[in-house]
Amino acid sequence: MVSFESDYIAGAHPEVLRRLMETNTEPLPGYGSDPYCESAKDKIRKAVGMPEAEVYFLTGGTQTNAVVISTMLADYEGVIAAKTGHVSSHEAGAIEYTGHEVLELPQKDGKIAAETLKKYLEDYYADANHEHMPFPGMVYISHPTEYGTLYSKAELESISAVCREYELPLFLDGARLAYGLMSRETDLALAEIARLCDVFYIGGTKVGALCGEAVVFTKGNMPKHFLTSVKKRGALLAKGRLLGVQFDALFTDDLYFRIGRHAIEMAEKLKDIIRKHDLPVFIQSPTNQQFVVLENRQMEKLGKEIAFSFWEKADDSHTVVRFATGWSTTEEDLAALDEALGRSRS
Amino acid sequence: MVSFESDYIAGAHPEVLRRLMETNTEPLPGYGSDPYCESAKDKIRKAVGMPEAEVYFLTGGTQTNAVVISTMLADYEGVIAAKTGHVSSHEAGAIEYTGHEVLELPQKDGKIAAETLKKYLEDYYADANHEHMPFPGMVYISHPTEYGTLYSKAELESISAVCREYELPLFLDGARLAYGLMSRETDLALAEIARLCDVFYIGGTKVGALCGEAVVFTKGNMPKHFLTSVKKRGALLAKGRLLGVQFDALFTDDLYFRIGRHAIEMAEKLKDIIRKHDLPVFIQSPTNQQFVVLENRQMEKLGKEIAFSFWEKADDSHTVVRFATGWSTTEEDLAALDEALGRSRS
Amino acid sequence: MVSFESDYIAGAHPEVLRRLMETNTEPLPGYGSDPYCESAKDKIRKAVGMPEAEVYFLTGGTQTNAVVISTMLADYEGVIAAKTGHVSSHEAGAIEYTGHEVLELPQKDGKIAAETLKKYLEDYYADANHEHMPFPGMVYISHPTEYGTLYSKAELESISAVCREYELPLFLDGARLAYGLMSRETDLALAEIARLCDVFYIGGTKVGALCGEAVVFTKGNMPKHFLTSVKKRGALLAKGRLLGVQFDALFTDDLYFRIGRHAIEMAEKLKDIIRKHDLPVFIQSPTNQQFVVLENRQMEKLGKEIAFSFWEKADDSHTVVRFATGWSTTEEDLAALDEALGRSRS
Amino acid sequence: MVSFESDYIAGAHPEVLRRLMETNTEPLPGYGSDPYCESAKDKIRKAVGMPEAEVYFLTGGTQTNAVVISTMLADYEGVIAAKTGHVSSHEAGAIEYTGHEVLELPQKDGKIAAETLKKYLEDYYADANHEHMPFPGMVYISHPTEYGTLYSKAELESISAVCREYELPLFLDGARLAYGLMSRETDLALAEIARLCDVFYIGGTKVGALCGEAVVFTKGNMPKHFLTSVKKRGALLAKGRLLGVQFDALFTDDLYFRIGRHAIEMAEKLKDIIRKHDLPVFIQSPTNQQFVVLENRQMEKLGKEIAFSFWEKADDSHTVVRFATGWSTTEEDLAALDEALGRSRS
Repeated sequence: MVSFESDYIAGAHPEVLRRLMETNTEPLPGYGSDPYCESAKDKIRKAVGMPEAEVYFLTGGTQTNAVVISTMLADYEGVIAAKTGHVSSHEAGAIEYTGHEVLELPQKDGKIAAETLKKYLEDYYADANHEHMPFPGMVYISHPTEYGTLYSKAELESISAVCREYELPLFLDGARLAYGLMSRETDLALAEIARLCDVFYIGGTKVGALCGEAVVFTKGNMPKHFLTSVKKRGALLAKGRLLGVQFDALFTDDLYFRIGRHAIEMAEKLKDIIRKHDLPVFIQSPTNQQFVVLENRQMEKLGKEIAFSFWEKADDSHTVVRFATGWSTTEEDLAALDEALGRSRS
Repeated sequence: MVSFESDYIAGAHPEVLRRLMETNTEPLPGYGSDPYCESAKDKIRKAVGMPEAEVYFLTGGTQTNAVVISTMLADYEGVIAAKTGHVSSHEAGAIEYTGHEVLELPQKDGKIAAETLKKYLEDYYADANHEHMPFPGMVYISHPTEYGTLYSKAELESISAVCREYELPLFLDGARLAYGLMSRETDLALAEIARLCDVFYIGGTKVGALCGEAVVFTKGNMPKHFLTSVKKRGALLAKGRLLGVQFDALFTDDLYFRIGRHAIEMAEKLKDIIRKHDLPVFIQSPTNQQFVVLENRQMEKLGKEIAFSFWEKADDSHTVVRFATGWSTTEEDLAALDEALGRSRS
Repeated sequence: MVSFESDYIAGAHPEVLRRLMETNTEPLPGYGSDPYCESAKDKIRKAVGMPEAEVYFLTGGTQTNAVVISTMLADYEGVIAAKTGHVSSHEAGAIEYTGHEVLELPQKDGKIAAETLKKYLEDYYADANHEHMPFPGMVYISHPTEYGTLYSKAELESISAVCREYELPLFLDGARLAYGLMSRETDLALAEIARLCDVFYIGGTKVGALCGEAVVFTKGNMPKHFLTSVKKRGALLAKGRLLGVQFDALFTDDLYFRIGRHAIEMAEKLKDIIRKHDLPVFIQSPTNQQFVVLENRQMEKLGKEIAFSFWEKADDSHTVVRFATGWSTTEEDLAALDEALGRSRS
Repeated sequence: MVSFESDYIAGAHPEVLRRLMETNTEPLPGYGSDPYCESAKDKIRKAVGMPEAEVYFLTGGTQTNAVVISTMLADYEGVIAAKTGHVSSHEAGAIEYTGHEVLELPQKDGKIAAETLKKYLEDYYADANHEHMPFPGMVYISHPTEYGTLYSKAELESISAVCREYELPLFLDGARLAYGLMSRETDLALAEIARLCDVFYIGGTKVGALCGEAVVFTKGNMPKHFLTSVKKRGALLAKGRLLGVQFDALFTDDLYFRIGRHAIEMAEKLKDIIRKHDLPVFIQSPTNQQFVVLENRQMEKLGKEIAFSFWEKADDSHTVVRFATGWSTTEEDLAALDEALGRSRS
């Protein structure tokens, strides 16, 4: 069935898979100490414009969030995040499992505002009993957000400024970073993100890898003996090459950005189809995830031909659904959707 | 450089890699709900001779140990293991990170004895203050052990009997299970292991997969809502297919066992070479890991031509080193070792 | 200085202290196995009208919440609480430290409504991805709440009914239970609470003890080997008698209820004084905590004569403050407050 | 029944209890911010001869060990302790509950030797795979040990020197410190302990308090925002005065040392009685705990008149038991024991 269910419906991008094959029989040391990991780190350092950045490869998004947050927070600290942030709501309590509270902020379209953050921090320190609450120890944002929206450069600069004022590391979850970077509506380049954040990750799983996320520490702030902390969390792969080779491929010949650009092109055409069929848009998303409201019977009918994902109930007769594009989305997929949408209406 | 450094020096076995390629573009649902995961589980159920067994795929060995142990123990329990067990000594405190103590037993050649276990349990319950100590809640063994040794059928039956008597689940870490099953000196078949253990895992990472371990719950005892507990530990892969496809390949046409047999054949020839060069054997291992004592200067010389791994200091002038075989070990590798050993002597 | 700062400003009620003195030199076994603990448990079982209830003594409120919640939740579960609940906001992340998320519900006057709870549970189970979120595993309420308000019998019955429907234990934090039971506006007796809740605690620290909370499990549901879990959390006192003797005294001759009644009488007179001085009431509280809005200059002036506690900023020139009564509050204290309030106005 | 069961069989020393009574009605702020806590800290700073030491009061021994160790260790570290150390074996996994491993060393009479420690550290860092094991992050010793034995000044200096060399904080568990300080066979004064250790605690529970341990940080090394970390672990008492008043009394007119001296005198007389009755001594203890081997029938007979505690089985017909003295032990108790021992023989 043609699928827009997510950006992780297919395996690896062919160029990634090819490199896995080409390097498959080379005997390599384990645990991330192989030359492909080194080469991938170098390429990432170049791509983010920071020769001194520290890069570490982990396997999946929730794991990365939990490892980074729990190793960077002090014992008495929690992490600030939007109420809709992935760490707040869709990780089965993975942050709490590490012993830390997620301090939830109100959000708009999945984003937090610098003013909201600042107000929260002021109120916290103004409270005479604040020592009975976890100290704010880090700010977590996602870009693109869980709703596909993006921070503007000005917005990220404001948030970053508040973080600097309060000496809070700013952590950007880039599980879908490529789609933010290649969006037609962004003014935020990778180098800006590296400059404004203290740590962020470049998502691989949702951008053409079989698995893998590349964490970038930008301020010489990788937690000490990070490998041991990663191992302790069961997050250290014996065949670290699996991550190294994939990221080496993703950062060769701009593959990471090409995948992003392709998915964005497909998403723009998807938006044309949505408009053509007069489907109400749930939220304006400039990236690879598109959220539309479907009448329930239409949803059911469409669901027989096309895979997409349930997002939330809109009302008793309507549902918000998500269509996502990715490296494997084709013009044929879009045409199939267009036709199926036509049929689903009647 | 020719390498005997470990059984995870190479990528995936060609048949595994081929299946990853063949299925790469199929759109599939995430988080382990794809048909390859289902098919792989079916094949594993057949291989272990338990149509009702529950199978769950995780990514690596330490992760698997921590997830299984922490979800099966009650709050007030710890896990019993040999002092040399992987969970006791080489997982950076991953079990303790989940809030549980490893209760260490004396061992011989990496194995615990049923009598030692029974004595420990008797003493525990005889102690008037035992409620001030964690209750024994599970027994962990590895097969092959960290020293490459194997439990005999009689030994495993005795341990299993003690576990039944004390109502303790018996957990077998099979990170290298294939090499135990195909050893020339074993009388323990896979079906016996499934019958005698309450949970065990079939290691993929060290037996031809890029990553992946298949946990088998044999008594209808998979922890409730296991997916949520796995997610909470950051151990749920979005592209669950990566594990499903690989294990589907490993359990097609007996590949898992063929890999085991090949590595054992190579190990037997390796043992011949060791004998030929009169190298003292540190421990008699009937599986794919061979431990020998090298004079330090010979070790240094050999290390320039052949990769192997440091195990432990024997004395001031000798070192225990490990040679491991795997799916990728060839006759040429063995010949190279033989020649290099010759040269290293002089 | 005369103090209304909290209900834990003084030591133990004289009758409690007297019993500590009288029993001081008796040699007793440790860890809660002494006869005073047994006697206190019996008296509490009688007071709650449940001969089969299990009672366990712990030291403080946050400790009790963390121990009870973490031992009753399954691994994959979180605890539902009002956003203003003590566990949500004033325990420095103590619940998260045990690895579990607090699932926050909207509240009114510190209370959650059965409808809100039911809606939350329906939405949770309707969500196709709910397995990526912690399962709701328990409902936490406080009575009196953090705002001094009370659940009516009808309200508690409705909440209890929803909990039964979803098979969720209902946990009532009774850190100030005496003040709820003796309120002039309550229709909820102790036996009703025991019937409607699955576990609750009878607060001692804030009701005349030096320390101590009595947890009551009403359904044969005390977690197995609870002593070991308590010890594991560093919450087991060697001299368990300290808790046993105190609760034995509190439940002798209705002392617990007498303390409650006294504090309520003092609070009613406090309310008269508040009315007399035309102070705006922040929230109508039928218990021993009274929240009023003070103009900032008045607050400062008053603060030189009378101790009270800061609650929150109302606006730039006003502040919400709390006055609390307890076993040690006297008519003289009230007269002093009355006079000081008069002076603070001018 | 006359009891030598432990040093926590009685309530508080009369001078401690008197101060609790005298201060009982004073209204005081909570959470340790009262003047008695301040005064007690000052007196302790004087007693240890360190005007700059930081002092913090906690409630019990296991709690103190868990709080101190878990807030001082880095994420990737474990704590080194004797295999017989309280944290290793009698705290129900309280250290592991905080996510850290106890790294066990061989011991003699409950003590670790500087050489053993040094060897362990050398071996750890010599191991090529040490990053797969927790880093040693602290050394825990108890003084007196769990067997009542004591470190000599020379021994503690050697251990401290190894700790300095490896930059490991040295933590001394002084649950029974008074009995060590007042032993007739010690050359270690309190000021020496403060100088040689980085953190230690002065036990109150077992030395005349109802509860309470005073942690002393000697190097400006109290963990940042310690109150919040304490609260997070459920270890913050609302009525902090309970601890402050007691320690203030214990450090007034040398009460702490007088209690120690009294118990030691009683223990010396106890040793005379043991000798008189020719009971084999299990371990030579210079402090308030005496371990003897009793023939089982004698033990049973004696147990009908005198309370003592079971320590461990010696052989099929003999048992090691413990007699402990404390502030409440009297000459009459000793005479009763003497007589009962006489009767138990026949």
